[in-house]
Amino acid sequence: MTRLPSAPAPGSVLEAALYVDDLDAAADFYGRIMGLDEELRVPDRHVFFRVGSTILLLFDPKVTVDGSSNPRLPVPAHGATGQGHLCFGASRDEIAAWCARLEAAGHPVEADFDWPNGARSIYFRDPAGNSIEIAEPRLWYDD
Amino acid sequence: MTRLPSAPAPGSVLEAALYVDDLDAAADFYGRIMGLDEELRVPDRHVFFRVGSTILLLFDPKVTVDGSSNPRLPVPAHGATGQGHLCFGASRDEIAAWCARLEAAGHPVEADFDWPNGARSIYFRDPAGNSIEIAEPRLWYDD
Repeated sequence: MTRLPSAPAPGSVLEAALYVDDLDAAADFYGRIMGLDEELRVPDRHVFFRVGSTILLLFDPKVTVDGSSNPRLPVPAHGATGQGHLCFGASRDEIAAWCARLEAAGHPVEADFDWPNGARSIYFRDPAGNSIEIAEPRLWYDD
Repeated sequence: MTRLPSAPAPGSVLEAALYVDDLDAAADFYGRIMGLDEELRVPDRHVFFRVGSTILLLFDPKVTVDGSSNPRLPVPAHGATGQGHLCFGASRDEIAAWCARLEAAGHPVEADFDWPNGARSIYFRDPAGNSIEIAEPRLWYDD
């Protein structure tokens, strides 16, 4: 097998993407209900939110499958359909508060359990049907 | 509009997901070529990698659309098809090294440009066709 030129493994996820069929509904959900700061919106194409050191990208795949029409910013085509997944990190107390807020907002918790290592996860749906989770970071990272 | 119970906005993306049709090809790409540390693998269902403070989840959607069969860990159904998107963060020098490595690995760079703020992005495809980007974090975060 050919030895590849070296490059350092990426140390961060800078952007994570979900696909939605209704950008206005997504913007309301992630902005008003989830409380995230909106970073950028291009009507009928995408809306982006800031989540700590990661940008959450929400795209309408009907548009992004065509790629960019700007020759100076030739972003390649992408776009998925179906139910994606994303998990936010939060403390155990914060997760309890989220259960109440999501229930009142009409996005009730669909699953709520502790993993074998004791970390709690809750799951709910965004307006597009994506499976969204909030979990204690110790699910994956030691305290 | 009803006033919702308060909960603090999530401060991190703990997990980001992509969907792939061939888990072994994905594991080879993200492990051997991208150099990420494999965290967990369930054959024929998923393989997870550690990327700084985020876990990258790669799922076979043909399996995950059925949800979990374990009543103690009732992970809800999810699963998407089409070309997803994820962006890793790296420095400008590291991005240059990635261009050479990806070309040699048979995953050539599909787009390579500077955004209006001067941050560089490159785009390439994983074996499933997902659009993967490596960008300078100053695309979204001031140095």
